[in-house]
Amino acid sequence: MAVATKSLEELCINSIRFLAVDAIEKSKSGHPGLPMGAAPMAFVLWDSFMRYNPKNPKWFNRDRFVLSAGHGCMLQYALLYLTGYDSVTIEDIKQFRQWGSRTPGHPENFETAGVEVTTGPLGQGIANAVGLAMAEAHMAAKYNKPDAKIVDHYTYVILGDGCNMEGISGEAASLAGHYGLGKLIALYDDNHISIDGSTDVAFTEDVSKRFESYGWHVLHVENGNTDLGAIAKAIESAKAVTDKPTMIKVTTTIGYGSPNKQNTAGIHGAALGADETALTRKNLGWDYAPFEIPQDVLTHTRKAVERGAGYEAEWNKTFAGYKAKYPTEAATFERLISGKLPEGWNKGLPTYTPEDKGLPTRKHSENCINKLAAVLPEMIGGSADLTHSNLTEIKGEGDFQKGQYQNRNVHFGVREHGMGAICNGMALHGSGLIPYGATFLIFTDYMRAAIRLSALSEAGVIWVMTHDSIGQGEDGPTHQPIETLASLRAIPNLTVIRPADGNECSGAYTVAIEKAKANAPTLLAFTRQAVPNLAGTSIEGVKKGGYVLVDCAGTPDMIFIGTGSEVSLCVDAAKKLTADGKKVRVVSMPSTDLFDAQDAAYKESVLPKAVTKRLSVEAASSFGWHKYVGTDGDTVSIDTFGASAPGGTCMKEFGFSVDNVVAKAKALLG
Amino acid sequence: MAVATKSLEELCINSIRFLAVDAIEKSKSGHPGLPMGAAPMAFVLWDSFMRYNPKNPKWFNRDRFVLSAGHGCMLQYALLYLTGYDSVTIEDIKQFRQWGSRTPGHPENFETAGVEVTTGPLGQGIANAVGLAMAEAHMAAKYNKPDAKIVDHYTYVILGDGCNMEGISGEAASLAGHYGLGKLIALYDDNHISIDGSTDVAFTEDVSKRFESYGWHVLHVENGNTDLGAIAKAIESAKAVTDKPTMIKVTTTIGYGSPNKQNTAGIHGAALGADETALTRKNLGWDYAPFEIPQDVLTHTRKAVERGAGYEAEWNKTFAGYKAKYPTEAATFERLISGKLPEGWNKGLPTYTPEDKGLPTRKHSENCINKLAAVLPEMIGGSADLTHSNLTEIKGEGDFQKGQYQNRNVHFGVREHGMGAICNGMALHGSGLIPYGATFLIFTDYMRAAIRLSALSEAGVIWVMTHDSIGQGEDGPTHQPIETLASLRAIPNLTVIRPADGNECSGAYTVAIEKAKANAPTLLAFTRQAVPNLAGTSIEGVKKGGYVLVDCAGTPDMIFIGTGSEVSLCVDAAKKLTADGKKVRVVSMPSTDLFDAQDAAYKESVLPKAVTKRLSVEAASSFGWHKYVGTDGDTVSIDTFGASAPGGTCMKEFGFSVDNVVAKAKALLG
Repeated sequence: MAVATKSLEELCINSIRFLAVDAIEKSKSGHPGLPMGAAPMAFVLWDSFMRYNPKNPKWFNRDRFVLSAGHGCMLQYALLYLTGYDSVTIEDIKQFRQWGSRTPGHPENFETAGVEVTTGPLGQGIANAVGLAMAEAHMAAKYNKPDAKIVDHYTYVILGDGCNMEGISGEAASLAGHYGLGKLIALYDDNHISIDGSTDVAFTEDVSKRFESYGWHVLHVENGNTDLGAIAKAIESAKAVTDKPTMIKVTTTIGYGSPNKQNTAGIHGAALGADETALTRKNLGWDYAPFEIPQDVLTHTRKAVERGAGYEAEWNKTFAGYKAKYPTEAATFERLISGKLPEGWNKGLPTYTPEDKGLPTRKHSENCINKLAAVLPEMIGGSADLTHSNLTEIKGEGDFQKGQYQNRNVHFGVREHGMGAICNGMALHGSGLIPYGATFLIFTDYMRAAIRLSALSEAGVIWVMTHDSIGQGEDGPTHQPIETLASLRAIPNLTVIRPADGNECSGAYTVAIEKAKANAPTLLAFTRQAVPNLAGTSIEGVKKGGYVLVDCAGTPDMIFIGTGSEVSLCVDAAKKLTADGKKVRVVSMPSTDLFDAQDAAYKESVLPKAVTKRLSVEAASSFGWHKYVGTDGDTVSIDTFGASAPGGTCMKEFGFSVDNVVAKAKALLG
Repeated sequence: MAVATKSLEELCINSIRFLAVDAIEKSKSGHPGLPMGAAPMAFVLWDSFMRYNPKNPKWFNRDRFVLSAGHGCMLQYALLYLTGYDSVTIEDIKQFRQWGSRTPGHPENFETAGVEVTTGPLGQGIANAVGLAMAEAHMAAKYNKPDAKIVDHYTYVILGDGCNMEGISGEAASLAGHYGLGKLIALYDDNHISIDGSTDVAFTEDVSKRFESYGWHVLHVENGNTDLGAIAKAIESAKAVTDKPTMIKVTTTIGYGSPNKQNTAGIHGAALGADETALTRKNLGWDYAPFEIPQDVLTHTRKAVERGAGYEAEWNKTFAGYKAKYPTEAATFERLISGKLPEGWNKGLPTYTPEDKGLPTRKHSENCINKLAAVLPEMIGGSADLTHSNLTEIKGEGDFQKGQYQNRNVHFGVREHGMGAICNGMALHGSGLIPYGATFLIFTDYMRAAIRLSALSEAGVIWVMTHDSIGQGEDGPTHQPIETLASLRAIPNLTVIRPADGNECSGAYTVAIEKAKANAPTLLAFTRQAVPNLAGTSIEGVKKGGYVLVDCAGTPDMIFIGTGSEVSLCVDAAKKLTADGKKVRVVSMPSTDLFDAQDAAYKESVLPKAVTKRLSVEAASSFGWHKYVGTDGDTVSIDTFGASAPGGTCMKEFGFSVDNVVAKAKALLG
């Protein structure tokens, strides 16, 4: 542990504060309050405890740091700069919140090396951290040997009042307590101020008691502004408790040092202004120009570079010994970290013919998960308390539980949002894990913020969503997705796939696994009810998003475009129309996202401009389908809420019958 | 309070159990576990405590009952049937979960009189209940007189483990504790079983301690299966504590009475099957045929009808006295309950000319809220800790706080999801309140399940969403909505409006208030940045969703379709093209939902089929726009995530400049 003199410590802490103050003052935008108040705890953590290598931000065994209160990102940029990361130079800090900079308005892992996850939407970070700690626990349980601990790091979080008000943090914290994640240490910046003013207006609960109720080890640093010893002691105590996560409530003053604005909401999210900046300089005895950092500070803080190189060298040595002694495990471990898939990983995925028994696509999904989990040890996941409805269990595998971290079946409880952010954290741990999280498709509404963040932050997660239409039946409109598919397809960088049968399910998982390794999430939508296996469906077809399933000679009179359970309806309706002498093509469109990504020639070959009579058939909202059916086309769809009745009845009543599809087609054909 | 003999009590409780068992057995679908386990607490509550009038389910001063664990809806249908509501007959119970029945798979307030809110998505109900209790507290504080309490009822909830795992319940419970809502009493069906099995797999926190940390009064009934006296005593104790909400943990056995399935996940969500049903009959000594209820039971439980008539008569007398003594207050109160708006309520809404200073539309929103709040006492709401960013404060009005329930500015804290469900509860209280909830548009992702439920359950809420595009600037992609508008427009029954300037903001609020009184929610999207006031914008135009703002002589060569902050871009681009000799129309489309609802002739008059060169301009996803621009049109849109930079820079870099719009238009025109 590095030892710093008292005055040097003050200088270091004020360096963090003024980098934040001056960057925000320059950009006239940002949140100085948290960096000023949390600088002491952050300095103690980064200077005396955290193990990381600034010159190799991705060094595997680094401690993970998450700034859950992401609006305070200047704190993190200051730390990265001071400790010698190449990703954040003083020039980058001067470009805070500017177009193209590496110092955006909230921490973005895909922009700035050294940032582990993308935060800003409150509560996500602490839940990501639970995922990071679960990934560490899992990899440690699986790959460590009594004589070689190759996975052994802490996950540290700084979170604020806002994070603690959000339900997602409670969900994740409850699960972290249940799992007893001893290497998760959260520092709660307890500053009593949120945007609306004192937390007295809306947040007077006893947060420490709440975390105790979750099974956390809870500590309190009463003076987080200047009592660095107490902060250090608390972190030491936290590390000493190995069977519970620790929450250290660190009471601070928001905007510490600003004589007129500290301890007010005014300093939370706005630049101090020239006058108050000058007064703050005076108050804290800071005689340096904007962006000027005393050489003594840099000399001290950049010792992190040497320390970090040492940590990594030490680990490399440990790993070399491990590799010599446990070559098989080491090979798997190295493959995982490399992000590569093993040869022939997808050979076990089943294919089907129309003679094979029709099954619910969620059942095909279960088969795929089990086939893949057998060859991909990186698959880990589960359901938000719907394991036997979502069919996500890896058979013969145990449950991930306290002391059983090597197991891969995760029970998230009825905590969809927490599950989402935890999966993101596991994916971003960098250990090659492919996490998957499951619930009913409709309940993506509970976890949408986390799904969006998976797409934004390049987290290779697979979202397994079952009961994907009114075909789910009796649960009724609260449980029947209508607009859900459209709302998910609209999210950038998220691939949504709704397979029609067994072959397309194998295709869906092929895409999802490849995307996960390419750091992109996929959302899979599966039926509750059985669907037939169709002639012509294929894994290759799914990869293209949409493809010709049934064709006619010459230019079609019309094209059906179906997805999922409605593709078989299209096939049957096409048969009837063909018998009537019409030339009909059926396009299976499991993924509009993948189809949109094809080149123009391929798209034209599937949906020729000349054929304007097009009918989409999907037991969901028409929203978004006009792009494919065009001005002269139509949709068989539902633009109202569903109803409680057996699934087959719902389907029929809402128009998903061969007769109605044929009638709609005939109306189009005129 | 009614007194029942011991054996009669058992019969009543078993009647509830077997109505559930037999209805679910008949439909082969449903959740018998909760009704069987929670029947004792529900019976005690409905028989000995709750005040309601079965023959007038909407009697204003009734106690509100929420089954937050909505999957156990047969419990509620059984109670409604036994106590004599006309909405649920024995025939209705036989139609459980069938097409067109009044007994759908989860409680739906819009289907079944006596059901207050729509539950099923877990955690929503307890949060709705917080809203109901807030509405009661507000109306009581405002309208009661020392000599006439016309608003005076409890809100009771039954919730389960699933509700308690969801973050939304924590958010709402924290707020309820903060507000000290003494008339909110929650019975927690603590049965240790969720769908994945024992709660030991994912939920081992100390729930009672957690509720204590929120400031709740917490009690425990150790034997909720048979100790009716303890249940009654706990409810009495709960009522005695008037400054805190109470959570009564009632430990029960899920599926109580089923010899082989009780206390297992197997009875949570599936019919018992013929054999186990027979065994359960034997075990509980129930000799009655399916759907047969002993006359003694009905004679007893239907005393609720007489009791209820008495309660209402008593209240009518109180109200008559109130009306005589306080005619002004009574008139307002009666208007509120009637759901009507006062004459001339919208006269104060401002109109603007292009000479008026351009303002952010969130500023116009603030003006509208303040103008309306001055004449509509039913407006109550606030923000999820972004009051001074969303600009939702009613000036000169105090904060809704403990003991200050008469005030209308609500601080929800950073709890978007809780806010959403609380607003739904306030709207569904039936006291004519128009609740509004605000956050940044992007954070609708946190509360989407509640927004959807507002649309499904006919809750007249106004969702006030600011910072509606990349124009919000420096906060970056985590805070910039891209797909958000599309994802909200896709929700059935939700009207989304994105006004272009001051006049359209007045139009947006005109629609939103009228919709709220018609029990439908509206979501309003406002800019952070200033926009000019445009010539030709109007309140009437907004009501039609889309209208011609700038026109040309003859058939247009092309049509621009803009929304919100991009309408002025369209106007400027049209000027340039007109100068180049093109015939250009500009359509302002603040609401595609409202436009879609117009008749075909109107739609044709705005977007004539003959004009196929159409360009939509919206700083958001293209998703959904092809319906309006057609096959030959194009969009100026963003289908990637945004970026952190000043708003003006973002707009320009992403193509929202006059030059780029003109270039895109010229490319279309060929």
